[in-house]
Amino acid sequence: MGIGKIARDQHVPALAGSADFTLAATASRNARVEGVEGFADLATLLEARPDIPCVSLCTPPVPRFDDARRALLAGRHVMLEKPPGATLAEVHDLEALAAARGLTLFATWHSRHAAAVGAARDWLAGRTIRRLSIAWKEDVRRWHPGQDWVFEPGGLGVFDPGINALSVLTAIFPRPLHLAAAELTFPANRQTPIAATLAFRDPGGAEVGAVFDWRQEGPQTWDIRIETDGSTALLSDGGARLSVDGTEVAAGPDREYPGLYARFAELLAAGGSEVDLSPMVHVADAFTLGRRHVTDAFDW
Amino acid sequence: MGIGKIARDQHVPALAGSADFTLAATASRNARVEGVEGFADLATLLEARPDIPCVSLCTPPVPRFDDARRALLAGRHVMLEKPPGATLAEVHDLEALAAARGLTLFATWHSRHAAAVGAARDWLAGRTIRRLSIAWKEDVRRWHPGQDWVFEPGGLGVFDPGINALSVLTAIFPRPLHLAAAELTFPANRQTPIAATLAFRDPGGAEVGAVFDWRQEGPQTWDIRIETDGSTALLSDGGARLSVDGTEVAAGPDREYPGLYARFAELLAAGGSEVDLSPMVHVADAFTLGRRHVTDAFDW
Repeated sequence: MGIGKIARDQHVPALAGSADFTLAATASRNARVEGVEGFADLATLLEARPDIPCVSLCTPPVPRFDDARRALLAGRHVMLEKPPGATLAEVHDLEALAAARGLTLFATWHSRHAAAVGAARDWLAGRTIRRLSIAWKEDVRRWHPGQDWVFEPGGLGVFDPGINALSVLTAIFPRPLHLAAAELTFPANRQTPIAATLAFRDPGGAEVGAVFDWRQEGPQTWDIRIETDGSTALLSDGGARLSVDGTEVAAGPDREYPGLYARFAELLAAGGSEVDLSPMVHVADAFTLGRRHVTDAFDW
Repeated sequence: MGIGKIARDQHVPALAGSADFTLAATASRNARVEGVEGFADLATLLEARPDIPCVSLCTPPVPRFDDARRALLAGRHVMLEKPPGATLAEVHDLEALAAARGLTLFATWHSRHAAAVGAARDWLAGRTIRRLSIAWKEDVRRWHPGQDWVFEPGGLGVFDPGINALSVLTAIFPRPLHLAAAELTFPANRQTPIAATLAFRDPGGAEVGAVFDWRQEGPQTWDIRIETDGSTALLSDGGARLSVDGTEVAAGPDREYPGLYARFAELLAAGGSEVDLSPMVHVADAFTLGRRHVTDAFDW
């Protein structure tokens, strides 16, 4: 459901290449996929096609709850794009509903399926980490052209890409962290931050921080740099490549969304759910704890 | 730990009247309680007094994590003033630490122990709720005179009292809710809101909202009004009184903090923890989802 940019760029091709799933129908107000039955809304789809067991929601987070609930109440398994909702509370509710009905709910974090994330996690396990620095800097005009919803309340602003970094951080760091301080920079005419700086507290003693910026033209940066007692690792290209002391040790093509659908199939086979809200908790904590700054107005 | 206004007004008298606890020592930078051994910090207290099994933290939320962790690592049971921390993630960490060490962690919500809250919960159970409206309006100059930390990042602003209302809402409402929209009003010179309006989504169909305001002089308002199919209830005075269709049905003296310590004793006897973060989740969701407005500067 939700045939927008992310569905066309990622979900539809991933489904086309999947051995586990077939795209049986779509629900989207104005768009459809050629050759696939299309409905204007999810309620109509669910009623017309009781044979469809799974729904993947690619709509923006704010209106997503009602459709996710509707799908679960209709007995369908549900996969959620990131972030899984506009609020933490609504995702807790969906999780409880899925559990009560014996359905699978999968809150996806696509960046966790980047090619070198698993290698980075394994490399870090057992090492003494001194410092971890995230730099996630991209051009919002390139990745969200004209999508005003990212700057509306609930759209998360620069945390929309930043939460990808946090989903990788929480997957590779060997223990829980929490936010100690945050600086949030809002365009004067917008409701969500265009840049943010985060400082985490690690009870294990590492210095952990992140810089998110949506104003970077030219080359884009999605890097996590980790200094340990012995050596320094760089997880770059959004998790696609890992190098240690300058030598590449892991890399691969982009298989993030195929990885998500393969994981969804595993969860369905096992009859379980996967709802890890830790990246979203850090974002909510940043909005709660962050110091607000105002910068130049932003227009497309 | 933390001999400030809330400790003097509530915790010390509640302990003096408790059959379960004795105030054996205090830790506070500059203050102490007459006739009680005083330390300047918690680390010194924990080392000097291994006989003290429980620590109650009354410090503001931002610096509280380190002391809570220190107390748990020293094998002490911990009770936390509300809100239990500056971030959700840190409280999740403390909860895991307490569980791993077999210690009791009690995240308190004092308003839940107001005299008529239990009666309101029982009265609501099974009724069809049409509308619930919270009005929590008080004078910050009266309740937090000169306490700049409430307007600093992490101080929560009007959510400092508002979270009390949310702790009552989440205790009496018969099902989970989540935030659908929020309006947050920030003084031009401050980092946290001085007023907020919240609209919740109830999958059960009730219209649920809240207005928080820290600018109310004269009589103070801490009311929750609930319209059901049959009748209308008013839970007033912060939960101290319940009337139904104009007739008072439950009321009592202020025993909130004695109630908290009695509950802590129960948890210790049972060997369990109580960490319900739902009020804090709603606050974090409001900061994440809220539309920001700027109003006149606030000075004491």
